[in-house]
Amino acid sequence: MIFQIKNGVPFYSLTRKGIPVIKDSRLGFILKDRAALDKDFSIIDMKESAFDENWTPVLGEVKSIRNNYKSLAIALKETTGEKRKLNIVFKVFNDGIGFRYEFPNQPNLKYFIISTELTAFNLTGDHKAFWIPGDYDSNEYHYTTSKISEVDTWQFPIISMGNKIDNMPDQYSVQTPLVLKSANDLYINIHEAALVNYSAMQLHVNRADFSLTANLTPDALGNKVYVRTGSHTPWRTILVSDQATEILSSKLILNLNEPSKIENTSWIKPMKFMGVWWELQTGISSWNYTSSIDSVMPNGQYVPHKHHGANTANVKKYIDFASQNGIQGLLVEGWNKGWEEWTGEWQDENFNYVTPNPDFDLTEVNDYAEQKGIQMIMHNETGASAANYDRRLDTAFRLMNKFNYHAVKTGYVGKITPHGEHHDGQWMVNHYERVAKKAAQHRVMVDMHESVRPTGLNRTYPNWVADKAGRGNEWNSFSDGTTPEHETIMPFTRLIGGPMDYTPGIFKLRNYAKEIPARQMHTTLAKQLALYVTMYSPLQMAADLPENYSAHLDAFQFIKDVATDWDDTKIIEAEPGDYITIARKEKGSDNWFVGAITDENKRSTAISLNFLDKGKKYIASIYADAENADWKSNPEAYKIERVLVNISSVLKLKLANGGGTAISLKLASTDDLKSLKKQTK
Amino acid sequence: MIFQIKNGVPFYSLTRKGIPVIKDSRLGFILKDRAALDKDFSIIDMKESAFDENWTPVLGEVKSIRNNYKSLAIALKETTGEKRKLNIVFKVFNDGIGFRYEFPNQPNLKYFIISTELTAFNLTGDHKAFWIPGDYDSNEYHYTTSKISEVDTWQFPIISMGNKIDNMPDQYSVQTPLVLKSANDLYINIHEAALVNYSAMQLHVNRADFSLTANLTPDALGNKVYVRTGSHTPWRTILVSDQATEILSSKLILNLNEPSKIENTSWIKPMKFMGVWWELQTGISSWNYTSSIDSVMPNGQYVPHKHHGANTANVKKYIDFASQNGIQGLLVEGWNKGWEEWTGEWQDENFNYVTPNPDFDLTEVNDYAEQKGIQMIMHNETGASAANYDRRLDTAFRLMNKFNYHAVKTGYVGKITPHGEHHDGQWMVNHYERVAKKAAQHRVMVDMHESVRPTGLNRTYPNWVADKAGRGNEWNSFSDGTTPEHETIMPFTRLIGGPMDYTPGIFKLRNYAKEIPARQMHTTLAKQLALYVTMYSPLQMAADLPENYSAHLDAFQFIKDVATDWDDTKIIEAEPGDYITIARKEKGSDNWFVGAITDENKRSTAISLNFLDKGKKYIASIYADAENADWKSNPEAYKIERVLVNISSVLKLKLANGGGTAISLKLASTDDLKSLKKQTK
Repeated sequence: MIFQIKNGVPFYSLTRKGIPVIKDSRLGFILKDRAALDKDFSIIDMKESAFDENWTPVLGEVKSIRNNYKSLAIALKETTGEKRKLNIVFKVFNDGIGFRYEFPNQPNLKYFIISTELTAFNLTGDHKAFWIPGDYDSNEYHYTTSKISEVDTWQFPIISMGNKIDNMPDQYSVQTPLVLKSANDLYINIHEAALVNYSAMQLHVNRADFSLTANLTPDALGNKVYVRTGSHTPWRTILVSDQATEILSSKLILNLNEPSKIENTSWIKPMKFMGVWWELQTGISSWNYTSSIDSVMPNGQYVPHKHHGANTANVKKYIDFASQNGIQGLLVEGWNKGWEEWTGEWQDENFNYVTPNPDFDLTEVNDYAEQKGIQMIMHNETGASAANYDRRLDTAFRLMNKFNYHAVKTGYVGKITPHGEHHDGQWMVNHYERVAKKAAQHRVMVDMHESVRPTGLNRTYPNWVADKAGRGNEWNSFSDGTTPEHETIMPFTRLIGGPMDYTPGIFKLRNYAKEIPARQMHTTLAKQLALYVTMYSPLQMAADLPENYSAHLDAFQFIKDVATDWDDTKIIEAEPGDYITIARKEKGSDNWFVGAITDENKRSTAISLNFLDKGKKYIASIYADAENADWKSNPEAYKIERVLVNISSVLKLKLANGGGTAISLKLASTDDLKSLKKQTK
Repeated sequence: MIFQIKNGVPFYSLTRKGIPVIKDSRLGFILKDRAALDKDFSIIDMKESAFDENWTPVLGEVKSIRNNYKSLAIALKETTGEKRKLNIVFKVFNDGIGFRYEFPNQPNLKYFIISTELTAFNLTGDHKAFWIPGDYDSNEYHYTTSKISEVDTWQFPIISMGNKIDNMPDQYSVQTPLVLKSANDLYINIHEAALVNYSAMQLHVNRADFSLTANLTPDALGNKVYVRTGSHTPWRTILVSDQATEILSSKLILNLNEPSKIENTSWIKPMKFMGVWWELQTGISSWNYTSSIDSVMPNGQYVPHKHHGANTANVKKYIDFASQNGIQGLLVEGWNKGWEEWTGEWQDENFNYVTPNPDFDLTEVNDYAEQKGIQMIMHNETGASAANYDRRLDTAFRLMNKFNYHAVKTGYVGKITPHGEHHDGQWMVNHYERVAKKAAQHRVMVDMHESVRPTGLNRTYPNWVADKAGRGNEWNSFSDGTTPEHETIMPFTRLIGGPMDYTPGIFKLRNYAKEIPARQMHTTLAKQLALYVTMYSPLQMAADLPENYSAHLDAFQFIKDVATDWDDTKIIEAEPGDYITIARKEKGSDNWFVGAITDENKRSTAISLNFLDKGKKYIASIYADAENADWKSNPEAYKIERVLVNISSVLKLKLANGGGTAISLKLASTDDLKSLKKQTK
């Protein structure tokens, strides 16, 4: 990393082992209604230091994380005019760099508004990019693989509530994390870490010279960030490696976040959960209770339409299944009043977060769940009226405490209220942090949907266990637009920022959508299992209906077994857009789990189990695509094999088109050894 | 009142005793992104009805209010296109009319956004108008008296935080309540009643044809009102009389508001209060505790600058004085952390509403106040971050309950957060109502400052006892811009909507401003006393410092005596811009109080005491301008006379330039009669 001032203007550049990664790129800011903070600088101080420590994440992919970097802190001062100061701090890791701006307290600068952040990332060539459009309100697009020079976001119909002018004004802007592959086979990931009190960064693509520049999300007035000195920006991050697997195992983003602000974290637990959810997504039942809130019965109550999913009897069925099958949690969407008119109309007041629908008995359901050992997961959909949720946070969390909810799934579907704010703007970024903090005060874990994409804040707020903030598994049902390669790209992009509640585990892969029987998922069943390993999340959903699991209880065994929190993770092989194979060791256990997935092309691979403990024997339960499986024509064909393996074993995997393999590895008992004698090679 | 459809377009007009008041004026709406709701209408139903009842306000100017009107409800339906429905309801009172639009539930209209309300008030001539500029964020202007054709708001420097483009885009728009006087001596007041879930209306003045049209306050995106059918607009009100006094005694606005939504109102009490306030306004002490929050002492605390007003010792002095002098309440501003950087910088997070400054001991102060029989009044200045206040309302009101605060003064100085919202927009209108409701839940009375001007909601929320929302007495200290006529206009304009916390009672009228010794108030001392009667408010401040009252304890006796809640009110004489004389009877007592004020011109008048009880004798204590008094050259010269009077008495009053007279009338005791024998005429 080289920092320099050229004619008063700050620049940085980045090489890896002598090979250029980022060419000289500008740093600085344009401010609103005052002189820009981008030139006439001289260096007044420069400090180098080094840091090396190991820290233990509360929940994570590995037991211990090494945070090892050299840092360079540069203090700049204007040589003319107001002689304002600006600091830039770089942290150089083995697998990339992070840098941020710091705004020190000073006489001539206190409050100001950022109109433009000038940070650039000037690429060395027309790299291959895996990108989604730079929408201020959504990350739920499928990825396009193209050269940088071919980026054109307006080919997409807009997904967020709004229109292109409001939500995607820049035709050439893409979301981060952006993953790139250069002609000389370097993998580069550009994102940010610790997005706090700032607006999210998109990257504007200059197709002519392959430069990328920061594009901050504005508020209703076009202002990007409101700043008070004594503060700093998020870290701008660049991961680089010649190994795709190193990008996936990088802990740079987490290391650039602050340590946990929650002292006692003993109540933060990983969990698998089911939900009154997929039946809503597929149209079997509905979130709302009545067809019209304008007509009420003589007793003053709404007229029920009789296909409300979150009714007490139905919820109990889920509780029974979860309880019988070792799933710890249950999410119920549509439990509360307000789903008749909850989004799309830009209401300020919609949900009150405490009133159940008439057929959902909060006490009865929670008593029954407790009796069956099931943790209920609260659902707080906001319809994007964050203003309303803010006002009712205290009340909402008090209800959760009263009824012993330890986790909440939040949602922000629609156009944000306050009107004109965006999901990715500073105001909402602060909102999400407030929710996470408030949840921590109430000892509640949070899983946010339709929030800004994460930036490693799960280190600082370990109760912020997951986000969706990307195109989840349900899009395989909503649309035909999610390609089988999608899950091979997500870990390189969306998941670089943090865990994703992707909602895997759909077993009935065709003919599930009530209104659109032709709809189908874009994976095989075995791949759905493998996603539990490849898509990291400490909250992991078993997303399908109980009856669909009952039809395949042998395959469901993997979901029962698979862990959600890990002592170790090995990225065995990976190529964005093509395949990923990951092995993980369950926290506090000898068990390992392997997930291997492929894109639309079938794939054969052989993986060494050299990560296993020496001298120990394991039973490998292999959930594989059947010979004739194919995501499109025969998705539900799978086979399950049990084999005895050890550290020397090599497993040959055959993945179907759009397929995958899931493997559980457990220490072999004497009984196992006996029963498997014949099959062992 | 005449309503008619002309070529499908709805119009109304108004006459009084055959004399035209409002010529044919348009009704309807322009909607965003859909067809306007303004034409192709036919009448599908029409209902007439009458109403007559008496109701008792919780706090008020009179004991009982008669609500007597005829109503006409017109149901309109489009004859073409979507055949949408719109209802218009008129209520016709003796002293004017109110009308509103109702949006019934219907198939082709549910959620919509109002771009423009077309309501017009076409005047019959170039009336004299008493107006302030149509600023979306402030009503704190002094009044201009001009012909309608001469209205030009841009002559004013902008007062609200912002600029003309943002806050006063229409050069010819004025605030309501607007009072007009026609060439044929009709007094007309145009305003609105029950402003709920809608944005406040300004009036655009067409100087050429004397038509006024509704000008609604927009949000950050330029949208005026977000509507869901099954709702209605506020009432548009027109008061008309040939007697100026009838405008002041009208109860039309209150009658158009809903009855109290608070069941038990026993805790709502009128009150006089003092405040650690004027010393802050005049620069003697300061709200903030430290000069800089960027430098802290080794113990982590701020460095105090030693002129923080709200320190425990100083507050106790106020408590002592108030307790000794029969004042019930004490407001303390600057008690809490955050005043160093609280407004002007558009911060989202500023105050937390619970943390006192280090030198203000919440427990000690409140214990001391309780011991001395003083009610502490909470102060919640928001710096206009209503978003932040909304989030902390629960916490703020819980603190009030814990420390036994029964009233709170709120404030909204600055540019509103959410960024781009306005003080007078729908979002803030909803905010104020939320605060009033939350306060009621906690049994706290509210006095709002810098809120939207009131529209009679103190009937519906009787705990919402007062607002400032206009140019208060402190502007006589801030500026030289408030003329002595100001208080003769306010009751015709700002106070038509509801009580005003005008903060009268300044006794030291010159040489009070620490930094600007030349500053002076624009009234005499006697006029300051008279304002307690002419400026109605159930919360009434004794605004000056204890030492200034101690210097004139004989005059202070009137403030001790004067009531704040009334069984009866007689508007004796009034002319906007010139003079007002009002007599009021204390609630549940035989005492009467009279206030007479004049503008910059001295004035002699004689008032009959024919409102007194027959056969009873009263002692009149008359607080009058001294012979040589003059607001500019000799403001503090007053004289106090005590005379025996009865129903037949006529008192001759002589008011100095910018002067006034205050009179208390109490039943005469035997001792009184003896001691006054010689003076009685």
